[in-house]
Amino acid sequence: MQNWTMRPIGFVRSPFAEANQVPRGLGAKHEEEGTLEILPEFEPGLKDIDGSSHLFVLWVFDRSQGVELVGTPPCDNQPHGVFASRSPFRPNPIGLTVVRLLGREGNKLRVRGVDMLDGTPILDIKPYLSSAPESELKRGWLAEAEARHETKA
Amino acid sequence: MQNWTMRPIGFVRSPFAEANQVPRGLGAKHEEEGTLEILPEFEPGLKDIDGSSHLFVLWVFDRSQGVELVGTPPCDNQPHGVFASRSPFRPNPIGLTVVRLLGREGNKLRVRGVDMLDGTPILDIKPYLSSAPESELKRGWLAEAEARHETKA
Repeated sequence: MQNWTMRPIGFVRSPFAEANQVPRGLGAKHEEEGTLEILPEFEPGLKDIDGSSHLFVLWVFDRSQGVELVGTPPCDNQPHGVFASRSPFRPNPIGLTVVRLLGREGNKLRVRGVDMLDGTPILDIKPYLSSAPESELKRGWLAEAEARHETKA
Repeated sequence: MQNWTMRPIGFVRSPFAEANQVPRGLGAKHEEEGTLEILPEFEPGLKDIDGSSHLFVLWVFDRSQGVELVGTPPCDNQPHGVFASRSPFRPNPIGLTVVRLLGREGNKLRVRGVDMLDGTPILDIKPYLSSAPESELKRGWLAEAEARHETKA
């Protein structure tokens, strides 16, 4: 079966040196600022990105190893499928984060909302163009875990 | 520099056999239904996905070749950077689509909102957990192109 080879277009600069510093689980807020440092050869691809308020960042879980198709996340005591969770132990170890673009200086994008470790390789950046209406979102097991958590608290 | 090898976890079944059939450009609506067929070996990873209303699908632009860091999209007459657009000619040819989950039968997810070609390889599926508020979104050059388009119409 065909494979594809992916390469970094840049790296994340974030305040998080280790995974246990990243806010996780129920109600985690990602308000930290960081920088997306794009490699000089790809800088032309940033033309006109400045007009976007929000970006999708696709990146590599480069400090996780292995695949766990079913696992119990830190925010629950029940196992869930990897495609129903944000687990790093994915068949293709790609992470996805929505960030707010604060500014651009040359090949550096200053952003808010990073949840990646410092040095994380970036695979792609895309404009965030529209949102699913909040009223139509169902979050499945995560909503149930949250409800159990709130009952306990 | 390090590279990563990505493999398909499944394939998209969609009504689109060729790129020119996919609605594109300003105001394109993606309401077509399709199926995400996950390879049997990865089916356990779908556990509990049924509770989600919306999913992120990461996939490969397998029928596009080459990289164009700056290009003029079909919906505008101005060139824009690849990271500020949804162009297929990306350094890492990964596509991202938000779909609505209609139902699951075994390894098949029936979804609405496909804009991928039939047979497109899927790299990952993630739960869509929250939206950026529509009132805070700025869409940069795309909003400007839309405004020009509406003035002309």
